[in-house]
Amino acid sequence: MFNQDAFNAYVEANRERFLQEFAEFIAIPSVAADGRGIQPMADLLTERLRKIGATTQQFPLPEGGSPVVYAELKGAGEPTLMIYNHYDVQPEVPVDLWDTPPFELARKDGLLYGRGVSDDKGELLSRIQAVEAWIATQGPLPLTLKWVVEGEEEISSIHLPGWVDEHRDLLNADGVLWEGGGYDAKGRYIFAEGCKGIAYFELHAHGPAMDLHSSLAPMVPNPAWRLVWALATLKGANDSILIDDYEKHLAAPSAELLARIDAAPIDDLPVDMQQYGLGGWLNGMDDKAAYRRLITEPTVTICGIQSGYTLKGSKTVLPAHAFAKVDCRLVPNLTPPLVHDLLRKHLDRRGFADIEIRLLGGEDPADSPVNSRIERAVLRAGSLAFGVDPIAVPRTPGSGPMHALSTHLGIPTICGGATWHPNSRVHSPNENIYEKDYFASMRFMGALIDTFANEG
Amino acid sequence: MFNQDAFNAYVEANRERFLQEFAEFIAIPSVAADGRGIQPMADLLTERLRKIGATTQQFPLPEGGSPVVYAELKGAGEPTLMIYNHYDVQPEVPVDLWDTPPFELARKDGLLYGRGVSDDKGELLSRIQAVEAWIATQGPLPLTLKWVVEGEEEISSIHLPGWVDEHRDLLNADGVLWEGGGYDAKGRYIFAEGCKGIAYFELHAHGPAMDLHSSLAPMVPNPAWRLVWALATLKGANDSILIDDYEKHLAAPSAELLARIDAAPIDDLPVDMQQYGLGGWLNGMDDKAAYRRLITEPTVTICGIQSGYTLKGSKTVLPAHAFAKVDCRLVPNLTPPLVHDLLRKHLDRRGFADIEIRLLGGEDPADSPVNSRIERAVLRAGSLAFGVDPIAVPRTPGSGPMHALSTHLGIPTICGGATWHPNSRVHSPNENIYEKDYFASMRFMGALIDTFANEG
Repeated sequence: MFNQDAFNAYVEANRERFLQEFAEFIAIPSVAADGRGIQPMADLLTERLRKIGATTQQFPLPEGGSPVVYAELKGAGEPTLMIYNHYDVQPEVPVDLWDTPPFELARKDGLLYGRGVSDDKGELLSRIQAVEAWIATQGPLPLTLKWVVEGEEEISSIHLPGWVDEHRDLLNADGVLWEGGGYDAKGRYIFAEGCKGIAYFELHAHGPAMDLHSSLAPMVPNPAWRLVWALATLKGANDSILIDDYEKHLAAPSAELLARIDAAPIDDLPVDMQQYGLGGWLNGMDDKAAYRRLITEPTVTICGIQSGYTLKGSKTVLPAHAFAKVDCRLVPNLTPPLVHDLLRKHLDRRGFADIEIRLLGGEDPADSPVNSRIERAVLRAGSLAFGVDPIAVPRTPGSGPMHALSTHLGIPTICGGATWHPNSRVHSPNENIYEKDYFASMRFMGALIDTFANEG
Repeated sequence: MFNQDAFNAYVEANRERFLQEFAEFIAIPSVAADGRGIQPMADLLTERLRKIGATTQQFPLPEGGSPVVYAELKGAGEPTLMIYNHYDVQPEVPVDLWDTPPFELARKDGLLYGRGVSDDKGELLSRIQAVEAWIATQGPLPLTLKWVVEGEEEISSIHLPGWVDEHRDLLNADGVLWEGGGYDAKGRYIFAEGCKGIAYFELHAHGPAMDLHSSLAPMVPNPAWRLVWALATLKGANDSILIDDYEKHLAAPSAELLARIDAAPIDDLPVDMQQYGLGGWLNGMDDKAAYRRLITEPTVTICGIQSGYTLKGSKTVLPAHAFAKVDCRLVPNLTPPLVHDLLRKHLDRRGFADIEIRLLGGEDPADSPVNSRIERAVLRAGSLAFGVDPIAVPRTPGSGPMHALSTHLGIPTICGGATWHPNSRVHSPNENIYEKDYFASMRFMGALIDTFANEG
């Protein structure tokens, strides 16, 4: 029987040390996009996992990729619970919009600030600390834990699916607790049974060998215009995707899925319209329509675009080069190679064979079955830890390499993080979580060890 | 009678000192776009003009604009020749593409490198040094010289027309020698009777108050898409301008103008296709068609575009803001306010009232009459200085505030610089001129003092 009081007392007694350890995690700029701090972070994480008695291993990846940190902690009981997190973070730019240094854990008005506090170091470390608290207060674990912690989640988990393929005999489990999820604007714990996929592209247009004087525009092709024209064929001004044959490959959301989406007790959305300075949702949708679109629709998003002179004042150049970063969020049955292929054909057909497409990374979409052991355990653990019933949603609008373990290995998987809140500013300046939620995440993890072990 | 040999001997004897002075001009980063080095450059120029005996004055401009350096040097003869140049330069970015530091005059293989060597410090200083050489070798000037040297040419001469208006009683003259012009690829001196105008805009699209996680794309409007969609309505993929009513305001080029363009002995164009890595001219035009289009057609050019994450790797953001820098080269009868107005109406009509338009600067187009005193003097001075007949073209594809003096004050004006060559990389890294042309420019200026004074 799980002694929740003893567990909670231990967490409380170790509060400041746990936060100090958290500060050490945040201090390492483990930015996968440029490789900074990746190895020191992998080493610190490995050491922390050893301290709770886990056997650990760092798996190097091809092309100098961030190593996978793998850990196992065998307990007394039968079932195996796998935990997925990532130790890499998004770049901290634009730095001048942060109120505190991005790689220093700041405590202010009940909040914790820093790059990665929500995505994903808070989840990662609070789960490890929860296992420490369990063993210290309850004795041996009633199950086996396996950790898969990668360092490339923010660059589309380039190597994870290949690594999973090579190590599938290591990775059998009865359920996976994934990252992501958190609280809605009313503070209710919310988790998801699946996620969208993603394909991240760069589109490049090449012009003259160097920037030229813009007076030459009547005779010299301009790559910025080529790119703008090409992009404008991909999506209409009403936000509908116009890529040839895209629609044809989409699995229509099942009536059951739509019913579950519409029935979800979502009376707020994962973005605060007022705080984010938005006059309304896209195309004037109401909340319900916006949420349905968020969960069911694929996207084609310009994440960045750059060409020519973009500093202060006027410089009259015809640029040598233009590029855009475009992410496509994928729903069944879109996959990164398929989207790449459709994009190439679409552009070629319209005379844009000159636009170079680079696929930087991608992940298949993933959905898990309803009512799995891990889902039942998460529902009960959530009720225990938070005192209210969790909200289950069929899919998160974010992406991750969940398919590698869930769809590919067939292990039911739940996005069940417990630190994020709707103003966490994940991927933005001033990323934050509530300090109380950092410890709530520990209580949830403690409860889950019990409920997962005791689910039939 | 102009003693050309004595003049040339003086120039030769002072070659190293003249180049040393040139290096001092190049060393000052007088970038109008950010204001760096503007005042030191105005002061150095003023001092140099005083050394040839000119009375000088710096006219401050509103809003902290770069001062106009004005100088007069009265001679014995009647006519007045005005000289226009500018002491500001384009920004030096991207610096890493320069082979030598942009603000150090570098001599290499007969070439002089540095920001502004061609545009426009080489013309400016070589003309002043020519006057020194004239007075030293020929005695008093046979005409009056007036210099108008501004420091905002590279930011569309924001304040010059207003300044000219206020000082028109100072500015009477019989002809203006403007900046620009130079040599064609065969080394022949080429000058122009007019220039295009320009309107330089920034278009801004505003989105959420901060960059958001790109998974929110199904419900949050993306300013990068708004901007791309808006831009794509301005110009078709065949490079035709689609701005409503634009065509209606264009004065059709006269048959005479077209005949003069087609008759121009241009068997090469102001851009080297191979060196600039171009597979061909826009839309597969031949040289003749490209040149005709260069001289007669207005443009709408994306000089720069920026939004979201544009560093290495993938960052999944929905950007808060997007902007483009767009320059419109103008032919009669387009003007900056007219284009601004047409652009606004065009975007509004298509549902892009959210796109903010900022007019950063503009200049009207300008044409001068054929066979003016200054044109005849330039033709004869060119023959004298270069030993071959100059080539006259009706209009340069570049822009300048020429209209302020030519069209507005009614003074015939010639773009008659003599340093630029087709690979001068004006506005680009490694801007350069031939060292021999720096001194040819002096010989041309010396001859022009004589021919202008003696033209009827």
